[in-house]
Formats: sequence, C-alpha cells, structure tokens
Amino acid sequence: MLPLRLVRLATRLPICRPMSASTAPAGPMVDVADDGGIAVMTLQRAPVNSLNLELLQAISKALDDVAKNKPKGMILTSALPTVFSAGVDITEMYKPEVQRLQQYGNNFQDVWIKLFGFPFPTAAAINGHAPAGGCLLAMACEYRVMVSGKYTIGLNETALGIVANDWFMDTMCHTIGIRNTELALTTGKMFAVDEALEIGLIDEAASDKADAKDKCKKFIKKFDEIAPSARNATKLNIRRGPLANIEKNRKTEIAEML
Amino acid sequence: MLPLRLVRLATRLPICRPMSASTAPAGPMVDVADDGGIAVMTLQRAPVNSLNLELLQAISKALDDVAKNKPKGMILTSALPTVFSAGVDITEMYKPEVQRLQQYGNNFQDVWIKLFGFPFPTAAAINGHAPAGGCLLAMACEYRVMVSGKYTIGLNETALGIVANDWFMDTMCHTIGIRNTELALTTGKMFAVDEALEIGLIDEAASDKADAKDKCKKFIKKFDEIAPSARNATKLNIRRGPLANIEKNRKTEIAEML
Amino acid sequence: MLPLRLVRLATRLPICRPMSASTAPAGPMVDVADDGGIAVMTLQRAPVNSLNLELLQAISKALDDVAKNKPKGMILTSALPTVFSAGVDITEMYKPEVQRLQQYGNNFQDVWIKLFGFPFPTAAAINGHAPAGGCLLAMACEYRVMVSGKYTIGLNETALGIVANDWFMDTMCHTIGIRNTELALTTGKMFAVDEALEIGLIDEAASDKADAKDKCKKFIKKFDEIAPSARNATKLNIRRGPLANIEKNRKTEIAEML
Repeated sequence: MLPLRLVRLATRLPICRPMSASTAPAGPMVDVADDGGIAVMTLQRAPVNSLNLELLQAISKALDDVAKNKPKGMILTSALPTVFSAGVDITEMYKPEVQRLQQYGNNFQDVWIKLFGFPFPTAAAINGHAPAGGCLLAMACEYRVMVSGKYTIGLNETALGIVANDWFMDTMCHTIGIRNTELALTTGKMFAVDEALEIGLIDEAASDKADAKDKCKKFIKKFDEIAPSARNATKLNIRRGPLANIEKNRKTEIAEML
Repeated sequence: MLPLRLVRLATRLPICRPMSASTAPAGPMVDVADDGGIAVMTLQRAPVNSLNLELLQAISKALDDVAKNKPKGMILTSALPTVFSAGVDITEMYKPEVQRLQQYGNNFQDVWIKLFGFPFPTAAAINGHAPAGGCLLAMACEYRVMVSGKYTIGLNETALGIVANDWFMDTMCHTIGIRNTELALTTGKMFAVDEALEIGLIDEAASDKADAKDKCKKFIKKFDEIAPSARNATKLNIRRGPLANIEKNRKTEIAEML
Repeated sequence: MLPLRLVRLATRLPICRPMSASTAPAGPMVDVADDGGIAVMTLQRAPVNSLNLELLQAISKALDDVAKNKPKGMILTSALPTVFSAGVDITEMYKPEVQRLQQYGNNFQDVWIKLFGFPFPTAAAINGHAPAGGCLLAMACEYRVMVSGKYTIGLNETALGIVANDWFMDTMCHTIGIRNTELALTTGKMFAVDEALEIGLIDEAASDKADAKDKCKKFIKKFDEIAPSARNATKLNIRRGPLANIEKNRKTEIAEML
C-alpha cells in the first residue's frame, strides 16, 4: 500500500517529521456545514490539504458524523485557494514509526472505504489541484465538478516513483474504464480540466468554487424524488467489487508497508 | 429479486390481482412470425406489455420454440402503439400468493437467461416506452433500434423506490459500462432517444416501427456470411460472466423475495 | 484454443504442411534493432508474417532477449509492405502432428503472456493489415499507431468459422470495452483505420511506417521521466486479470485443441 518504495524515498529526503498532534494548530482540519440538508465537508489543512494521519482521522470521523444525519447528500471541497488536496503527506513516510505508519495505512483505507461506499449522494467541488490521493478522494465521490483554470487532476504516482494501490486503480477504472486508466496510471498523467472533462474524469467544469458547489448541489438535487434507501442500496451494489477487494487485501497491504 | 420493498409497496396500492389465466383473453400474448428466416417476436399484452407471469411464460416458451428453428436471428418488438414494455406487472406484487410469486421470480430469471444467452443474433425494435423490465428486455438483445419521438428508455427502479436486481445492473454495465450505469441506476434516469443514442444505450434511431425493424434486419444480415456456430459460441463467451452470476444467485434471490 | 473447429477446417483445405525448420530460409524471422534505447522488433516472415511455430518461437525468444536489456521501450512492427501480421498460419492446423500442435499452442500462449505482460513500454507500428492474431499482437501492446490507407485491423475469427480464444477476447475488452468487443467479435469485423481510431482500437493514424514508428517513439518517450519500476509494476497490476485467466486455463485449452 503505502509503498516501501515511498518510505525509502522519503527516508532520503531532508524533511522533518510532521508536527505531532499535540503541537498541531488547534483549528479543526475538516469543517462540516449544513446547506439545506446537504452536508458540505471542507478540508482545511493548510497549505495543501496533504493527507497526514490527523487529517485522515478527521475525515473519517466527519464521514461517520455526516452519515448519522442521513443527509440529502454531501459535497467535498477544500478551503484552500489553489489546491483540492495534494494527497499523501510525504512526511508520514519519512523515517516512519511502525505503529503510526500502520495507523496511517489503516485510516487511509478506512477513509476510502467510507467515502467510496458512502450511501448518500456525494459530489466533489474540486477547487484546485488534485494529484494522487487528492484525485482519489474526488474519484471516490459520485460526481465531480472542477474549477476551470490551470488546475490539474490525476493519479501521478508513477511520476513520484511509486505504484498506485489497487483501490486507487479500481476507483479510476470505475470512473474512466480500464484502457484510459492504464494510460493515465502508467504515464502518471495530470489532466487539465478540459482533458479530464473529455475523458470523463470530471463531469463538469465550473467558473469558480461557488459555481462548482452549485453544480454539485444540482447533481444532488436530482435525487430529491428518489427513495434514498433504493438509491443508496443501488450505489453500494454497483460499488461492491472494489469494496470487496480492499476488504480482502487490506491486511496484506498494511503488512507489506511495514 | 422482486424486491420485498416492491411487494410491500404494492400491498398498499388499491389495485386488483391480475386476471387469472383462465379468465384472460384467449389471444396469445406473444406472436412469432417468420420474416425470411428471421423470427419476429411481438409482445402483445395490451395495454402496455406489462410482464405478468403469463406473459413471461409465453415469452419463455416462444424463446424455446424460436431457438429450436435455428433462425438467422430474432427481432423483439411490441404490437402496442406507444409502449415496448412497461416492465414488471406491479399487480403481481400486490398481496402475492407465495407460490405464484416464486413462479414469477423463476420465470423472469428464465426469460432473462434465455434472452441474454440466446445464441442466435437478437435485436430489439423499440417502438415505444421501455422503462425498467422493458429496458431490460431490450438490453438483453445484441442490438437496439428505437423509434424517435417522445419515447424513453431506462432502468428507473430507484424512482419507483426499488433496487434493480444484479442481472439488471449487469446487463446495463454490459451495454453502457460501469460509470454510465451507476449514474443511470442511482438517478433512475429515463433516456430520451437522442440521449440513449449518445450513451450507447441504443444503437440506432428509426423513423417508425417499420424502419426500426428494417434496421434490426440489416444488423442481423451482417451475420449472413458468418458461421453461426462460431458466432453463437463467441456471444456466449463474452456474456458468460453475467450468466454465471445469476446461476449462482438465483435461488437466494427467490428466497429473499418471499 | 486453436480450435478443433479450425483444425478440422484446415484438414479439408488443399494446402501443404509448412516447411520444416530445416528447409526454412536461413534469415531470421524476427529482427531486433536498437534505436536510442528503444528496441525495434520487426517481424519478417514473408509473405504475410503468418504465425507458424517457428515465428512464434522466434518472437518468444526475442521478447526474452529484449527484456534482459531493460529497454526504454519496444516497438513491434513488420518488414512487409502491406501486412503487419496475418495471424495464425493455417497450415499449422492442416493435418497437424499432435506434438507440434501442442507446441504451437503453448508457444502462442507464451508469446501473448510475454507481450501482454511485457513490463517495459510497448507500442505497435501497424504498417499493414492486422487480422486475427495480427490484431492480437497489436492489442497486446500498450499503444497502437496504424498507417492510413486501405489496411484493416480486427479479430475476424468468426468470419473464418472459428471462436476467438478467451485471451483474444480479454485483450480486446481491455482495449475497447465489452460492448464494442461483443459487436466486433460476433460480426468478425475488420476495422478501417478511421473506424479503429474512433473506437479506440488504435490510438493514432500515421502517414507511413516511418511516421508510425516516430509516433510510437513519442509515446515511449512519455516515460522518460517515469521510474521504470513503478511504471512497469503498475502496468502488470492493471493487466493482472487476463494474465491470471490464461494461467488458469492454458492447460485445458491445449488439451481441447488436441
């Protein structure tokens, strides 16, 4: 999973351990607001929403909390001006403590399982760059609207010298099919907004974040007349395969990280 | 399969039990005619070809009869002016007798297995609305030509508060891919003809029923120079997955209905 | 695999056994040249690169040799003016000796496994017709550039009265999806260059062989900045399914040939 390759790479980087939870800024890393029954989940770990253990734990808890409220839907977005999420926080891979790394892997798997298998309608308002794990979070939603401009989105793991996990790959195959996924993953391609639109990696472009959120809301409102229980069970049925795969492999994946 | 949900819903509806076989009109519900070696199977259960037990049994038997003749191909169409088939006859779900419901489920599975796994070339001349089970029958064919106009086609189960069975889902994935199927199923979308054409849910539009049948014939004539045994085995190979799935799950599905 | 059907068909054809290895022309059937770190593998068994046992053995060995050099990538092309490869040499199927036929089947499986699972970037410069096994070789590569003109490409097995093996089918599904594969395989369709381009069976058209090779090189150069180990493992991950299928079934397939 979090590839030894990356661990070894990070070991050679002159960067510091992430701040421990005790010295981290007090503000919550994830904000959840209600917008007429739709939960808006905003990632706000400056500067780039890189996914460290604490952010993953905060997302995981926020997903649980939102689900309890049986919302009309959920929009995932970022509080930062130019980045949706930069993906894995590489400092987590730098001289990692075994226990924390294990926790990290488990929490990342949990976040994906919860988001990809979130029964309620989900849409990503992608208001900035979304490489690697940032792209994964967006793809795990049911719908993607991305702000036009110079932002890019993609699973660029190979360009970082690492191999995307099976659930990254499965999520992309679910979204754009096998052939496009093979080309995207092997080349580590970061897609411009128009390229992402053409290939179906995103569903709509937007002029700015507000427009992106509006379009996400419009998508979620499609379900106003649909019985949630039927809709949600249908979603889980069609997402059953990738969810079964990770359950089967998640322990092995963690073991291989360590 | 025929979801308890639907059974419960129907239980609350002020509608009557379907006519029993003995009081049903004498005319056959399915007509099969030969058109130069191509079997034309016409569903003619007015007013909307809703699939009750007797219609399913008639289709099942007709498929057996047609197969025995090793036809050049088969065209499935409707005798009704504005509806291809309205899908499941909801009255079958209203205060159902256990034995009849069980029979119903089994016959519906059989019809799909026979039609999706029909070795000879199949094409649907969709001359009217094709919601839910009507869309399923059309998708189980190898080719779809739909009469232009205000007709729509789609698996709108969620809009009816029910969950499409796995074989409905598998058939749609086989036709338009996973991503489009997820969007179509969760939103219960009924596609206009041009939308269906764009997404590949149908292959051609036609000006009227005669034109639709002509285009179906033209499709089937593509196989004039192809050895039937090779063609037919190839079709069954590529359809093996969904057919294996239903065989594995059909008993459980029936048990869950009851 | 090499279907009894074809064996039986060939048994009725008034054609001769292929030349035995001892009487075959001395020139190598496969040429491998280095072009700045990219291996260019050229099939040169006149007149049409039909895949007999010796050509398959030569390709198999060449793939091993190229892999040992850890090239930047590999381009597969043909030395012949109008044919990429005509696929299976039907003379192999004519009154076959059991042992040779078994060897033939095994070597064909090996070539596909090695080429589809070749870790390094692969591209086909398709400078002529590519029916059946010729199309298979092209599809097993990661990228396809085809010379414009009157050439065609496709799996036309059904038109020859035979059933494409599962790995032929899996390779096409990997490339153009299930629905397009079903239509292509059942009809035995040979695609013109523009049709192949539209459906994604090829990725680019070229004005001539040199242009095709240049475009293949350009594709391979995309990986200049990508860590080979990550890229190659990613490719093998996404191709895992079809490779697992053939390993599971290859013995049965051979047994059924004999």
